[in-house]
Amino acid sequence: MWSGVAAMAADSEGILLGRATELAESIRRKKISAREVLEAHLRQIERVNPKVNAIVTLAAEQARKAAAAADEAQARGEALKPLHGLPVAHKDLERTRGIRTTYGSPIYKDLVPEVNDLVVERAQRMGAITVGKTNTPEFGAGAQTFNAVFGATRNPYDLTKTCGGSSGGAAVALATGMVALADGSDLGGSLRIPAAFCNVVGLRPSPGRVPAPEAAMGWNFLPTAGPMGRTVGDVALLLSAQAGAEARAPLSIEEDPAKFRQPLGRKWRGVKVAWYRDLGGLKVDGEIRRVLEGQRRKLEELGCVVEEAEPDFTGTDLAFKTLRAWGTAQTQGDRARQHRALMKETILEELAAGERLTQAEVARAMETQTKLWRGMQQFLDRYEYFALPVTMVPPFDVNLPYLSEYNGMKFRNYIDWFAPTWYISLVGNPALSVPAGFTAQGLPVGLQLVGRMRQEFGLLQLGQALEEATGYWRKHPGL
Amino acid sequence: MWSGVAAMAADSEGILLGRATELAESIRRKKISAREVLEAHLRQIERVNPKVNAIVTLAAEQARKAAAAADEAQARGEALKPLHGLPVAHKDLERTRGIRTTYGSPIYKDLVPEVNDLVVERAQRMGAITVGKTNTPEFGAGAQTFNAVFGATRNPYDLTKTCGGSSGGAAVALATGMVALADGSDLGGSLRIPAAFCNVVGLRPSPGRVPAPEAAMGWNFLPTAGPMGRTVGDVALLLSAQAGAEARAPLSIEEDPAKFRQPLGRKWRGVKVAWYRDLGGLKVDGEIRRVLEGQRRKLEELGCVVEEAEPDFTGTDLAFKTLRAWGTAQTQGDRARQHRALMKETILEELAAGERLTQAEVARAMETQTKLWRGMQQFLDRYEYFALPVTMVPPFDVNLPYLSEYNGMKFRNYIDWFAPTWYISLVGNPALSVPAGFTAQGLPVGLQLVGRMRQEFGLLQLGQALEEATGYWRKHPGL
Repeated sequence: MWSGVAAMAADSEGILLGRATELAESIRRKKISAREVLEAHLRQIERVNPKVNAIVTLAAEQARKAAAAADEAQARGEALKPLHGLPVAHKDLERTRGIRTTYGSPIYKDLVPEVNDLVVERAQRMGAITVGKTNTPEFGAGAQTFNAVFGATRNPYDLTKTCGGSSGGAAVALATGMVALADGSDLGGSLRIPAAFCNVVGLRPSPGRVPAPEAAMGWNFLPTAGPMGRTVGDVALLLSAQAGAEARAPLSIEEDPAKFRQPLGRKWRGVKVAWYRDLGGLKVDGEIRRVLEGQRRKLEELGCVVEEAEPDFTGTDLAFKTLRAWGTAQTQGDRARQHRALMKETILEELAAGERLTQAEVARAMETQTKLWRGMQQFLDRYEYFALPVTMVPPFDVNLPYLSEYNGMKFRNYIDWFAPTWYISLVGNPALSVPAGFTAQGLPVGLQLVGRMRQEFGLLQLGQALEEATGYWRKHPGL
Repeated sequence: MWSGVAAMAADSEGILLGRATELAESIRRKKISAREVLEAHLRQIERVNPKVNAIVTLAAEQARKAAAAADEAQARGEALKPLHGLPVAHKDLERTRGIRTTYGSPIYKDLVPEVNDLVVERAQRMGAITVGKTNTPEFGAGAQTFNAVFGATRNPYDLTKTCGGSSGGAAVALATGMVALADGSDLGGSLRIPAAFCNVVGLRPSPGRVPAPEAAMGWNFLPTAGPMGRTVGDVALLLSAQAGAEARAPLSIEEDPAKFRQPLGRKWRGVKVAWYRDLGGLKVDGEIRRVLEGQRRKLEELGCVVEEAEPDFTGTDLAFKTLRAWGTAQTQGDRARQHRALMKETILEELAAGERLTQAEVARAMETQTKLWRGMQQFLDRYEYFALPVTMVPPFDVNLPYLSEYNGMKFRNYIDWFAPTWYISLVGNPALSVPAGFTAQGLPVGLQLVGRMRQEFGLLQLGQALEEATGYWRKHPGL
């Protein structure tokens, strides 16, 4: 029945580690009930989560009620929603009504919100069953998932390694079959890095595709929520729930998100893809480069015309760090004045850097961002896609707060090791992380595909073509 | 032949003071040639411009070549563009290839650009004939049109009064029949105020409707170019040329601008219009209020449901002044370091205010802008339109650099007297200034109509309905 049959005895039917799209279809056809699907996932959480610490708050009772209601609705013959009965978990930065939401911070370790944030609300309205919350670094800062409330989340392919972040709990929950779909969010790479480190798929959408109705700065698109899944088709399915117009978000895209439930097939002959060189001087680890070469060949086998080419990244480093620090000053300033002792040092340092900025530095950063945005759009007039690494390095020691050195590469601060993702964030183009194979040590590697603005559909099409060509997504961790 | 026959002997055929849409139709039907239309306008410029000083650079020879080429194309049977043969002038802030562009500044008094800015290029590509440049305050700063290069532009309804600004030359050139159409630009009200003071029409479009491909900050929508004309239909015609997708502008709207050449008729019964009260404490002059009451009755006669209601403007004053000064610091900082002695005091003061800003003040202003944006959109969920004055006061002494006092109202700085327009600019909703009648002294008054985001078409529809109901646009100045 399941095309993605796993090595795991617990999933002989593929309920846990197959495609969410197919699981939804099985529920729709009454081959399995929402309750049965949920119970299988709850058992998997009970079995696997203690090893990886991905789901930090479990909402089993609410989930059971929701699954029962879903089955009853189906029994009454009601029209079923696209995510009907699919177990999902929400990043612990997203507020969940009646379910603890900590932001990975001891300050909020007992907070139970009364409202759902947009991606939670939209997933539930589309039929998904919320099973719990996924771990995140404190306030999502950094691409290593650990915090003082719950500790670290471990990489299921090697429990001594980081799963990446900040949507690390989500990636691990997906990789281990604890949920069918998961949301994440991304400022500097947080949907893409954990996807790459855990052999799953993460999409950073275009500005406004997944709207931010309560963002304090409505035109700042650096932070965005987005979908994650084990397959590209699953990510498209969740995006179809998360996306859509929202009157409180100025950049909100009005296009009908049902588009993302259309088939992703297309022909690839002659499609031009730019292949990264050195990203303006970033040193990508040799093993990562070697693994990605396999993807380059797959692109060529598909019929794509692959050429080495890059947009100009000059100024990216300063502009991104300026805008990131400036954002931190706004989001963390008041909190740090009240709760300084409960906040981690990297955030306090970034906050201080943000508060030291002058108005002119902020303006220069925005001007650079505009210039680089124009450069990327012109570049993507010539190439339909840009392919580059998600990360420069493979997953590292879970006990390191961040990577300061690797294979002779030195990183000056906690975000330098994941520059290839925030090089893209700064301009806002949609970017997809897809499984690209494994290092000699068996650690997952991700390929980052960047598409034209608002062309997530085309990006998902290419991601799915690679997925079909490689089948890497089926190489589940042996937990 | 012309429905808008003027009192002026020089325009017995309505070529000069009629509708641009009808003039275009007369050319298309070969009732008159582009050359004849141009010569009539050049004669009018020769006769009237010395009295008002609206057109500061004349490009008669280039215009004659373009008109001859237009007639020849028509003679060859080529498909005609929508603006075919219509004489236009460009604001002297827009670069015109081969035609002096001063920005109203002595620094650039001899600058002849090699490129056209977007609204120039698009108007010409749609068939318009460029006849010259219209006066503006130095760098467009302020809503009174005077500068050290060309002096002041005078109000054609009373030569002792200001025409408003900063698109003052454009408004006067339109009011006096020196051009058929004109572009302008607007940060704090510069398309709307001179339209109101000169009994013509100006539209501030939605962010990205008329894209800014070279703006240093691509997501800052405060400054925008836009169309002006004697009638709403003419403004719609010019907008259809100026609007349309532009790959270098991140906020660019992709909708086909040919939409703005569709008929503007619609039914008004039951349409909800919010009528201003006091704009959160602004004191609108009694005579302005009295004149506008006539428009309120017209709205009711059309069938609209008019209710007194306003969005919350709390924080607008500080946020707008912060963002305006911040923008001035970026655009004028380098220039002031080189050419301080050649720049006017109001700009230098605003620049200094901008440079004194902290990063936190800029952030607070952007957060307030977002909050107010949300408030306006929610307000316009309840009302389809918001109607308010364009200005609090009628045109004042042309010798005053700005208004510091009027009828007991005190204004602290050079932008306070035109707050009702920048109250709208801050949130970016499209706003149309339409002729609303005359004060007891015979000076024009404008009504400002604000519409839903990206709904310029609906705004133009209401403007045209009022225009048809009142006919004020035909009350040309007696020059």
